[in-house]
Amino acid sequence: MKKILFAGTFDPFTVGHQAIVKRALPFFDEVIIGIGQNMQKKTFFSLEKRLSDIQNAFENEPRVRVLVYESLTADFAKEIGAEALLRSVRNIADFEYERSVADANRRLFGLETLLLIAEPEYAHVSSSLVRELLAYGKDASKLLPEK
Amino acid sequence: MKKILFAGTFDPFTVGHQAIVKRALPFFDEVIIGIGQNMQKKTFFSLEKRLSDIQNAFENEPRVRVLVYESLTADFAKEIGAEALLRSVRNIADFEYERSVADANRRLFGLETLLLIAEPEYAHVSSSLVRELLAYGKDASKLLPEK
Amino acid sequence: MKKILFAGTFDPFTVGHQAIVKRALPFFDEVIIGIGQNMQKKTFFSLEKRLSDIQNAFENEPRVRVLVYESLTADFAKEIGAEALLRSVRNIADFEYERSVADANRRLFGLETLLLIAEPEYAHVSSSLVRELLAYGKDASKLLPEK
Amino acid sequence: MKKILFAGTFDPFTVGHQAIVKRALPFFDEVIIGIGQNMQKKTFFSLEKRLSDIQNAFENEPRVRVLVYESLTADFAKEIGAEALLRSVRNIADFEYERSVADANRRLFGLETLLLIAEPEYAHVSSSLVRELLAYGKDASKLLPEK
Amino acid sequence: MKKILFAGTFDPFTVGHQAIVKRALPFFDEVIIGIGQNMQKKTFFSLEKRLSDIQNAFENEPRVRVLVYESLTADFAKEIGAEALLRSVRNIADFEYERSVADANRRLFGLETLLLIAEPEYAHVSSSLVRELLAYGKDASKLLPEK
Amino acid sequence: MKKILFAGTFDPFTVGHQAIVKRALPFFDEVIIGIGQNMQKKTFFSLEKRLSDIQNAFENEPRVRVLVYESLTADFAKEIGAEALLRSVRNIADFEYERSVADANRRLFGLETLLLIAEPEYAHVSSSLVRELLAYGKDASKLLPEK
Repeated sequence: MKKILFAGTFDPFTVGHQAIVKRALPFFDEVIIGIGQNMQKKTFFSLEKRLSDIQNAFENEPRVRVLVYESLTADFAKEIGAEALLRSVRNIADFEYERSVADANRRLFGLETLLLIAEPEYAHVSSSLVRELLAYGKDASKLLPEK
Repeated sequence: MKKILFAGTFDPFTVGHQAIVKRALPFFDEVIIGIGQNMQKKTFFSLEKRLSDIQNAFENEPRVRVLVYESLTADFAKEIGAEALLRSVRNIADFEYERSVADANRRLFGLETLLLIAEPEYAHVSSSLVRELLAYGKDASKLLPEK
Repeated sequence: MKKILFAGTFDPFTVGHQAIVKRALPFFDEVIIGIGQNMQKKTFFSLEKRLSDIQNAFENEPRVRVLVYESLTADFAKEIGAEALLRSVRNIADFEYERSVADANRRLFGLETLLLIAEPEYAHVSSSLVRELLAYGKDASKLLPEK
Repeated sequence: MKKILFAGTFDPFTVGHQAIVKRALPFFDEVIIGIGQNMQKKTFFSLEKRLSDIQNAFENEPRVRVLVYESLTADFAKEIGAEALLRSVRNIADFEYERSVADANRRLFGLETLLLIAEPEYAHVSSSLVRELLAYGKDASKLLPEK
Repeated sequence: MKKILFAGTFDPFTVGHQAIVKRALPFFDEVIIGIGQNMQKKTFFSLEKRLSDIQNAFENEPRVRVLVYESLTADFAKEIGAEALLRSVRNIADFEYERSVADANRRLFGLETLLLIAEPEYAHVSSSLVRELLAYGKDASKLLPEK
Repeated sequence: MKKILFAGTFDPFTVGHQAIVKRALPFFDEVIIGIGQNMQKKTFFSLEKRLSDIQNAFENEPRVRVLVYESLTADFAKEIGAEALLRSVRNIADFEYERSVADANRRLFGLETLLLIAEPEYAHVSSSLVRELLAYGKDASKLLPEK
């Protein structure tokens, strides 16, 4: 069974993240969404909220599973038997970052990374944009998965 | 059965191309290497030479098949039942190019693209570098699959 | 009266070009579309075809004028009294190119350049993509202004 | 009357900012410089100092107005009747950032963005460079508008 | 005597840093490694540890000297008689950053900068990667100079 | 004696090239300007013209020598005893290109490359811009070394 891990903080999980998971599903038996939990890092949304929102977004998709982890991402990938990391790239800045992380994961831990390029209509979507809109009291629902 | 198409001119097929195919094999049942044949475009190596060199490079790997095509890449992918294109990205210039081709293939033909980032040790390897070395009478064998 | 010049080869004029002109219209009294004619450079579409297609695309917009020129773009801009060049940027490669051309036009000819970022849904659209699709006998009408 | 909004923190307003405003003036009836005030964000210079320094820099230019705002930039632009945002791009990193903000403003709020490329002689100028020089007790006056 | 300054926080000094110093040695009589000490900035490793680790890494190389400084890098370079700064560039993000710092140093202080491109096998190596691995209790010795 | 090779087609040699050579002189005993001669490649200016123009530009600088070569650049560097290649980088596109050439030269021929970042005032200067201006009958003397 081919599993891939899509890891992140997902603070919050956006329509951009959702689109990547949906596009990856045809190629894998299971897509694991891993919420990286880092006690030092403060988040805008609680872990419980992030977990339940992602679960709701995929409640009709049995091949998506949502898990929480505290270890290094590469260790978590091995622990759950994921064969690779799935990453999304919106732009050059993302690409340069992903390249150096992917190099490190391949060289240090033998872990492979597959990239999907974000669809242009989601290229501007980010968790930080959602948080900024909410901080100004604006409606961000167009950037979030439908309930 | 999950098939992916790795298409190119492969004039010639380098160790960089070979590494990408090997890295993709764990994720797919079959990797099709498609040699795009374009009558207008002159190549340094004959089609026969390119075809046999690639076949030799994978003679012990039954899950790699090498085919020649003359149509639009997206049409060829559908014809052979490939679910996506496999592309390699060495740098920013590659990424920008792949992004616009991938957008076009997704929007116009519903065809998905998966990217692998070239390993750093192959980032400088290209078919044009091989051709330039040969034009100056230098040895390019380190950039080509072992015989 | 504030005029801006949108210059190019437009071989052919795409929906991406059209969108840029429409987005610039609220800021200028007149947008001049200048078809640069270079006898040395072979085009896929004839000058007549390109000219009439662009005129048709804007037949209901009196503030758009289409002209043909053979001189250096900066000279043509001055000749018609345009205060600046309008350029569209789809990606990093476009940006780097536009930066060096804009620098040259500002320093050598005192001519200013205004940039609009291409809308993401048009980022993959280019004249060369249209020509490639047509060369393979495909339908490119989604990339061209409606008739 | 055509108004454009040039918004920022301007901590401090540099010769680079000043050059952009001057270059935009020929194309607009009024350039509004909007100092975004964010109570959470600490600044090096007080709001009063930033406001008066910018006003002094344009005291002979009646078509420049300096305003302070606390709302989302897009809301402020609408409130004052600005037809677009004016942004300066010094390099690729700026461009990628501006692209995603401009996409968001266009899609979420129907607000357009016009870009000017920073003149090369100002490409290294930034508010953070000024602050760093001052922190080390150096003279930064060449990077600031003349008094 | 030609001296060049390789300045940084080196928190910690990695195999990537070490490789750059070694590659610069054939071109200069002396390479000064300058540890920038900034009281405001917290580091993971103590100054003493960073200093002794770098000294150990070059204990057999009399043409490398390790110094600590608290002033602006450009001032320190002049103080020790260095003719230029040596900088390493791993990727585009590094390049854009180095360009703006190098422009500032050339224009404001008349100080030149020489760049070496990081070898691909070290492109993923960074002090922050080392710190992250250690924070998760992993072995980072492959990224650090041999003892 | 430390020699560095600055190689190119120099069709023509611009003020940008000249500035790089001058900036490199303090660090090397000799800067060799190598005009790469490629019989297949047509140039705008004759070899004789390019050679004499560069010699004139440095007639008062005995530490600059101008040579013509037909071999691979790396072979020529070794032949003349140059310890490294000197390259200029104007922008991201240059950087990506230089990175892959520098990697190839280091790995295949053990030849090192030193980069200088073009001064911003020369970032728009290129041989192709000069040729384009001349093709339109414009004055390009500001982009060329003074006679």
